[in-house]
Amino acid sequence: MTKTTKSLREDPVRHIVWRGSRLDVLDQRLLPRRVKYVSCRTAADVAKATKDMVLRGAPLIGCAAAYGMALAARRNRLKDVLAAEPVLRRARPTAVNLMHALDHMLAVARNGDERSLSKRMSAAAVRYYRDDLAYNETMALLGAKLLKKGSRVITHCNAGALATAGIGTAVGMIRAGFLTGKVSHVYPCETRPYLQGSRLTLWELMQAGIPATLITDNMAAHLMKTRKIDAVIVGSDRIAANADVCNKIGTYGLAILAKHHGIPFYVVAPSTTVDLKTPTGERIPIEERSSAEVVSVLGAPIAPKGARAHHFAFDVTPHRLVTAIVTERGVVAPADGRTLKKVLSHR
Amino acid sequence: MTKTTKSLREDPVRHIVWRGSRLDVLDQRLLPRRVKYVSCRTAADVAKATKDMVLRGAPLIGCAAAYGMALAARRNRLKDVLAAEPVLRRARPTAVNLMHALDHMLAVARNGDERSLSKRMSAAAVRYYRDDLAYNETMALLGAKLLKKGSRVITHCNAGALATAGIGTAVGMIRAGFLTGKVSHVYPCETRPYLQGSRLTLWELMQAGIPATLITDNMAAHLMKTRKIDAVIVGSDRIAANADVCNKIGTYGLAILAKHHGIPFYVVAPSTTVDLKTPTGERIPIEERSSAEVVSVLGAPIAPKGARAHHFAFDVTPHRLVTAIVTERGVVAPADGRTLKKVLSHR
Repeated sequence: MTKTTKSLREDPVRHIVWRGSRLDVLDQRLLPRRVKYVSCRTAADVAKATKDMVLRGAPLIGCAAAYGMALAARRNRLKDVLAAEPVLRRARPTAVNLMHALDHMLAVARNGDERSLSKRMSAAAVRYYRDDLAYNETMALLGAKLLKKGSRVITHCNAGALATAGIGTAVGMIRAGFLTGKVSHVYPCETRPYLQGSRLTLWELMQAGIPATLITDNMAAHLMKTRKIDAVIVGSDRIAANADVCNKIGTYGLAILAKHHGIPFYVVAPSTTVDLKTPTGERIPIEERSSAEVVSVLGAPIAPKGARAHHFAFDVTPHRLVTAIVTERGVVAPADGRTLKKVLSHR
Repeated sequence: MTKTTKSLREDPVRHIVWRGSRLDVLDQRLLPRRVKYVSCRTAADVAKATKDMVLRGAPLIGCAAAYGMALAARRNRLKDVLAAEPVLRRARPTAVNLMHALDHMLAVARNGDERSLSKRMSAAAVRYYRDDLAYNETMALLGAKLLKKGSRVITHCNAGALATAGIGTAVGMIRAGFLTGKVSHVYPCETRPYLQGSRLTLWELMQAGIPATLITDNMAAHLMKTRKIDAVIVGSDRIAANADVCNKIGTYGLAILAKHHGIPFYVVAPSTTVDLKTPTGERIPIEERSSAEVVSVLGAPIAPKGARAHHFAFDVTPHRLVTAIVTERGVVAPADGRTLKKVLSHR
């Protein structure tokens, strides 16, 4: 194990903890002020925690769903698993990792004896989680190689350890970059309305000792024009077959701004994020959440009573605005959608 | 007076009230929750209210500064006025209307008898305020003509009645547009960090009965891609001689996004906003405010303790991204900076 790999694995965030009969989930809505866990004893509990944003981040949602299926299997009854699956599937419609995890766990459930169901599902969920960790490590090291020495980077939302089994996708690449001298400074966008950037990403960066300066989402363009910005690095919730990238609201705008300023735009996501069944980004359903989450910040109202608001949770960045997609299977320049298919073909 | 003009003048916001011996200023930081006035009895009081954002908006800052100079003249001593001028000038470095108002009031002070100083300055401040109102009305009607019927528009920050003597610049054009069937729906960006969009602009629009839906700053690109958006309309704090536009942070990004989607980008500002002494936008000083205003929202912390943050208050939009500048003297397509000079030449 290299020094960088070792450092990457240090201080994993204990944000989902599998206890065999329950899954303890760190309530990310309370970070960085409070560290509190929500105990999930059923698949419905996991679905609720996912829907309510106790946990978030596409890869982590996938891991939690796998454990949710393991919880549904505890009485060794296949019908419980089959009943739990659609409940989990509805929790967050945009994250394809969720669909991938459920498909995988369904296949495991059906492929064997009902008496061993709980044991097999539990083992499969743990394996799914460990695979995500390993993917993150590979992507972090592959991605860091793309950066030039001393890069100043912008990131959006939280594609960090908290969004995955650990290490992180975009933030994993940034961490590996920092450990190898490729990253010198990070500007996380605060990421309204949920403020994942200021609450979670900045917190992770500060924990890791990486120099970071918070910006509001609307400062990115000014920063790109007036300071040296070498890269924008983000995660993804779903990537279409043509390499269009769905990610947290604001990503598409950042990609346009990066293009305008000639700054490379990198997407870091495990291959489970790629949905070959979705031909283009236009076909990805964009979750619309409650407007209450926009007209208030941390519960405090910021708009007049009766105000209307849109709350698009995600947007789609066309592949022509993406410089490269970093997966655990390799780096893809997505100008040509076929490349992505090829890289993923032996999945 | 046409019906539109009459409607435009209805319900002026009582946000600065001249009482002869004091200026009562509506505390915009508390809107829309509370209506409270701050009494300014000296020029220093006005400077403090301006610096502390009790009042904001470049044209309004100019009007308040004119009244501040009138307050300084109350003892009929020119030296008081000369001493007050630099105190007011330092209050907000970016707003050129402030500089314009002070230059104008200094000229008034010097042009006459010291015994009549207070009387002359008071009358000049009232005239300055009324001129701004008249400019707004002219711009609103000129600007509305640029729009096509039933337009859906995005605006940023607050360039409304609250930012001016009344009626507003960008919001004035929107109001005139609504009254003439040119505007069907408005999307104000919330405008972090101060939330002028959600707190002030949305409030003004709702008061005027104009259909409006709030968006976070990072939703604008998605909205431009997925819905019909016909125009972006903003105000300005200073326009350079080459027609580069300085305005609230986030404006430059919006202009790039508008260009990318082929959407016209309009700037509405009185000719006092144009600073012919500043050759290009790069020469405009960008105010950097306290990072405390970014790491918290309405006083509640949103980032880890000890977090660093940038707080650029403004940015500069190059003139090639601006479709037209609407002034009270006419509409300028700024691709050619000389046009601007020509329109303003008989000022």
